[in-house]
Amino acid sequence: MEKSPLAPDHFPDLPVIDGVTFAAIAAGVKYKDRTDVMLAVMAPGTQIAGVFTKSSTRSANVLDCQAKLGGASDAGAAIIVNSGNSNAFTGKAGEGSVAAVCEATADALGIPTERVFTAATGVIGERLPHDKITAKIDELVVAQNAGGLEAAANAIMTTDTFAKGATKTVEIDGKPVKIAGIAKGSGMIAPDMATMLVYIFTDAKLGQDELQATLGSLCDETFNCITVDSDTSTSDSLMLAATGVSGVDVSGNASFTNALKDVMLDLSHQVVRDGEGATKFVEVTVTGGATDASAKTIGLAIANSPLVKTAIAGEDPNWGRIVMAIGKSGEPADRDKISIHFGDILVAEEGWVADSYTEDAGASYMKAQDLKISVDLGIGTGTSTVWTCDLTHGYITINADYRS
Amino acid sequence: MEKSPLAPDHFPDLPVIDGVTFAAIAAGVKYKDRTDVMLAVMAPGTQIAGVFTKSSTRSANVLDCQAKLGGASDAGAAIIVNSGNSNAFTGKAGEGSVAAVCEATADALGIPTERVFTAATGVIGERLPHDKITAKIDELVVAQNAGGLEAAANAIMTTDTFAKGATKTVEIDGKPVKIAGIAKGSGMIAPDMATMLVYIFTDAKLGQDELQATLGSLCDETFNCITVDSDTSTSDSLMLAATGVSGVDVSGNASFTNALKDVMLDLSHQVVRDGEGATKFVEVTVTGGATDASAKTIGLAIANSPLVKTAIAGEDPNWGRIVMAIGKSGEPADRDKISIHFGDILVAEEGWVADSYTEDAGASYMKAQDLKISVDLGIGTGTSTVWTCDLTHGYITINADYRS
Repeated sequence: MEKSPLAPDHFPDLPVIDGVTFAAIAAGVKYKDRTDVMLAVMAPGTQIAGVFTKSSTRSANVLDCQAKLGGASDAGAAIIVNSGNSNAFTGKAGEGSVAAVCEATADALGIPTERVFTAATGVIGERLPHDKITAKIDELVVAQNAGGLEAAANAIMTTDTFAKGATKTVEIDGKPVKIAGIAKGSGMIAPDMATMLVYIFTDAKLGQDELQATLGSLCDETFNCITVDSDTSTSDSLMLAATGVSGVDVSGNASFTNALKDVMLDLSHQVVRDGEGATKFVEVTVTGGATDASAKTIGLAIANSPLVKTAIAGEDPNWGRIVMAIGKSGEPADRDKISIHFGDILVAEEGWVADSYTEDAGASYMKAQDLKISVDLGIGTGTSTVWTCDLTHGYITINADYRS
Repeated sequence: MEKSPLAPDHFPDLPVIDGVTFAAIAAGVKYKDRTDVMLAVMAPGTQIAGVFTKSSTRSANVLDCQAKLGGASDAGAAIIVNSGNSNAFTGKAGEGSVAAVCEATADALGIPTERVFTAATGVIGERLPHDKITAKIDELVVAQNAGGLEAAANAIMTTDTFAKGATKTVEIDGKPVKIAGIAKGSGMIAPDMATMLVYIFTDAKLGQDELQATLGSLCDETFNCITVDSDTSTSDSLMLAATGVSGVDVSGNASFTNALKDVMLDLSHQVVRDGEGATKFVEVTVTGGATDASAKTIGLAIANSPLVKTAIAGEDPNWGRIVMAIGKSGEPADRDKISIHFGDILVAEEGWVADSYTEDAGASYMKAQDLKISVDLGIGTGTSTVWTCDLTHGYITINADYRS
């Protein structure tokens, strides 16, 4: 698979996060000649927060992680993830696979199974050959090292066209606090159901409750604001581990929260930039809505509309389709109060195309790779920004290929 | 545009509906060398019911029709529709265009403007050149004839690849009651926002209130159960005119309701069969849901999922994507109680692929042009059936082409 035209130039230089080590290995779950299992091992005292898919058909791994969140942090903890098989819709056998992987990892590391978190991404409905993973755990434990986060990012890819990483360091109380994260995902990935997985690590010190609340609230402004194709995986997982090894208490610290949000935004945008078949990265901002939630519903109606997304693919400044998407959202809007901008270009206002607008200006703007569409509804103070990509022949080719 | 591979063999033989006459003419609104305005003229006493788009950005024509529904029926009535320009998002000028067309039609026919209903379909955001339409009204009035329904069906097409008609005659009290209808639509049609328009005529006798209630309730089981691309037009209109000329009172008559539903289902399926780029016609049936509404939400989540639709395009029996779509719907479901059939083939049950299922059987089934996907949720008695088409390169090509 060719690298997405929207990919960053290179994988970022990720710092060592004190209190976490990583390892990646080729276990042969499905792929040949590449790594497909990552292990992260965290020091005693690490607090772990998580946000997971709301799907009613979520995988055994997700259910297990959700049950374990908030447990005692005095022992160490681990995250172990495989690619190539999602262990989703595998019935009771799927739960058995999760238990087997957790037990083997806990035994090898000398930590409770309640502190081992798992994820799996890849083909659905096939029994996870967990023996291949458990057979490699001793090797993973030996291989762990503080600089292994990039290798971990590579091991969890499925049809991603590039590995995704982001980092930020902030100075708090005169000491550096580091945040580094990795992600995988490019829509619900062909040839089968797949997954967005995100793992973020920091040496900051923060209690479990605040860590979970911060992660949930930032997720609403970042990962919950991106869409490639409106389809939701059974396995989506976002986890944040705070080792506390820096000794810097970041409770209530806005600099830390902002830095964490930057890392989450960066990773979420990279997922969109690796959207299946994507050739354009699109920011949709809605202002003047009845409420923030209403503005977000309208933003997502625009960002998920196949007609808006195909128009963008065709570099067609087809603002009529944006009006249509606003209308179908079911949220309050008044035709005669809507204004629409492409970048700085005023396209429509007062229920009609703007006097100053020309098709040439709109068409020229649409040729850019990164686009901004702004809608002001003019009826309230609700705002929202969401991000998406275009819908191209590439998406059809990737997803209509026979699963082989 | 080549005719859809899912098109019926031929346009049906539509009967004369006593009390209605039709005319079609080339007014040159946008298209050259084809008819683009249709007129239907109904006898005094005709009752008219209508169902319209719920879009908050609906067109001036839709707003005008909604205001006129339920008016006195002692005078005659008319429906006048143009293709080529949707008169949507044209501000106050759009309301002026509707008024001009209604007044000219009312004058020429000697009926009140309150009994003239309009619709417009085609390009959005461009002023409707209504002078071109009003200039032709005298000619339309002269040309009206009882056999003109097929010509009317042709005049309202935009990028439809075939004209759509359906009919049914039922015997009630020993007398034939006739129903005939036409439709246009093939998704939200490129190169611009477009429309589903449906006009159904019957010589049955029925009061306004019951006519409207029957139409609304049947619409929920027919046109509101189809989806091509999840996008909703600003102009969708469905109107039913009962002239009463047969003298047969069909109040509370199940045979009439069933016949009307057959005509509506037939027309709604033809719209799906003309879905942009469609190569497969797909029926999705959900049973065992918490409620009928919940079953419909899940059915539409499956029918609208880009991943399900591309898998169908690729003839891929990718049942994992159906599990995903059930999960993302937000409706109650229990992974271990779901069963899935392709046609008569049991694919999955009890949270896993069925023992008897083979990929070969699934792959062979998916090669058919008409497909049935059945999901039993196993948690209640709610049921729903919806219809859709696949998502192909043809859809992208049609909708990503630059609007010229």
